[in-house]
Amino acid sequence: MSVTFADVEAAAVRLKGWAVETPLIESPALNDRIGGRVLLKAETLQRVGAFKFRGAYNRLVQLTPDQRARGVVAFSSGNHAQGVALAAKLLGIAATIVMPKDAPVVKVEATRGYGAEVRFYDRLTESREAIAAEIAQGRGSVIVPAFDDPHVIAGQGTAGLELARQAEALGVRLDVVAVPVSGGGLISGVALAVKALSPSTVIVGAEPEGFDDAARSLAAGERVVLKPATRTLCDALESPAPGEITFPIMQRTVGAMAAVSDTEVAAAMRYAFATLKLVVEPGGAAALAALLAGKVAVPAGGTVCVVLSGGNVDPDLFARAIRGEI
Amino acid sequence: MSVTFADVEAAAVRLKGWAVETPLIESPALNDRIGGRVLLKAETLQRVGAFKFRGAYNRLVQLTPDQRARGVVAFSSGNHAQGVALAAKLLGIAATIVMPKDAPVVKVEATRGYGAEVRFYDRLTESREAIAAEIAQGRGSVIVPAFDDPHVIAGQGTAGLELARQAEALGVRLDVVAVPVSGGGLISGVALAVKALSPSTVIVGAEPEGFDDAARSLAAGERVVLKPATRTLCDALESPAPGEITFPIMQRTVGAMAAVSDTEVAAAMRYAFATLKLVVEPGGAAALAALLAGKVAVPAGGTVCVVLSGGNVDPDLFARAIRGEI
Repeated sequence: MSVTFADVEAAAVRLKGWAVETPLIESPALNDRIGGRVLLKAETLQRVGAFKFRGAYNRLVQLTPDQRARGVVAFSSGNHAQGVALAAKLLGIAATIVMPKDAPVVKVEATRGYGAEVRFYDRLTESREAIAAEIAQGRGSVIVPAFDDPHVIAGQGTAGLELARQAEALGVRLDVVAVPVSGGGLISGVALAVKALSPSTVIVGAEPEGFDDAARSLAAGERVVLKPATRTLCDALESPAPGEITFPIMQRTVGAMAAVSDTEVAAAMRYAFATLKLVVEPGGAAALAALLAGKVAVPAGGTVCVVLSGGNVDPDLFARAIRGEI
Repeated sequence: MSVTFADVEAAAVRLKGWAVETPLIESPALNDRIGGRVLLKAETLQRVGAFKFRGAYNRLVQLTPDQRARGVVAFSSGNHAQGVALAAKLLGIAATIVMPKDAPVVKVEATRGYGAEVRFYDRLTESREAIAAEIAQGRGSVIVPAFDDPHVIAGQGTAGLELARQAEALGVRLDVVAVPVSGGGLISGVALAVKALSPSTVIVGAEPEGFDDAARSLAAGERVVLKPATRTLCDALESPAPGEITFPIMQRTVGAMAAVSDTEVAAAMRYAFATLKLVVEPGGAAALAALLAGKVAVPAGGTVCVVLSGGNVDPDLFARAIRGEI
């Protein structure tokens, strides 16, 4: 089962008027610092504060009336939960979200705020897949995967379609597009769209150090499953392996990967606060962190689009980041 | 000495390629809350993090070579300081800025970062006007007023020209434009542009409680000078009176004024952080605060553009605001 550029284009038609066409933001100060032109695709300004609404809506809007009546189930540490919850609300579908007990409070509250039922689980002793499967079986509900689903990937890809067209409207040829990576739903969708419209653009993925399953998988030529020994500030980027559907797309389209430390991520959040005036969550800042840390190769005077993929962050964590306490 | 719409149009030509054309940002969540359509003119994304760059650049770029050689002087608690400092740097002009000793650290550091010399003064015992005049006299420098200057007003007006044209491009007729008010440079410039292009749009100004000199002046039909008995969170909105040039423009163009409390301003900053994912400083959030507090009359289903005029805020203050400690 694969995903094509045509699927992304079809998703864009479905999302029109539902998803926000997020702006490409440019900062002269950031351009000066990088020595090139940086365009920020601010998915922080998307509905639910993250790109995840795109994929969730594209999946849910294609359910049959019968499927809609039986509700949907998803498991997620946060942004996918909110994306599914809001898409379900807009479509009149009941949603149950399985979330870890230690998910950021702001994400749990937002998910409930969209009317979804939240079922907590313990990361150490329970399987979220098993819990979701049990709920889905009981009600005949569809499970909405966070990334390894063609409709979800095509939906996320609309962010790439938008940024490519927005760059073209500015008369800009993109040398590089840099994207945070967890299971690969966003980067594979974005890469499908960008590569179709601009084949020479290099796609760069950014992962947290210790959670570099995508980089290792791409190097090995097969999906590597990590058993992370550490935690990361990037709660949104903790997937242990690329997906079965996302990985082959990444193999065809991703040019380079970068790993960023918690310190680099916090510095990027602080930079976004102080200079860009944007609220970015840790995982959402991974690609910006890689760029600021010099880990994204941009030709001198070249142009890079950085996807800021989400902005849902607890106030306490944000306060620590902007005060330089991380 | 007055200012016309043609002056704003001429300023826009001078600023093209120098000022950022800041986006109009829309949030479905905010639309739902207000029960209408809200377009946010994000001057937080302007160079120096506030609209002030527009007016400063429009003033400085019109200096003669001889005036440029003798440098400029300005006094400001912060954003005007940064605007003048950056415009001077870009034009190769030496700048001296007279700032209060208790100005936000972030604004002082940024002003120095643009290469300006900072001269501190004590709000209680010294006159910033006298200090600036002394420096200017010694060097033959031009003093760049923060608001009461035709070129400064015309420059700030380009934000209004942009938002009116951007709204038109979206096919939107603006019922209301809401703007933070201190000395009136921004609101008078914006009103000149918006009223020229859309005469029926109502211009609403927002001031801090206790610093409502513009509202009192408009009510009295003459400039009222306040001796504020309190402080305000909005360090950017502490002017004691409207300007001699700005006030007559405000009399002709401003439809209503609103006063907001520190609590309402902090709530707006928190809302901007949590829902809009935007960093807004207290004064920059005054019009949003008025809207969220129900102090801006918007027709049901109507459209309002809110100017977020600046985002330069110390991390400690921002942390307290988003944690609900103010």
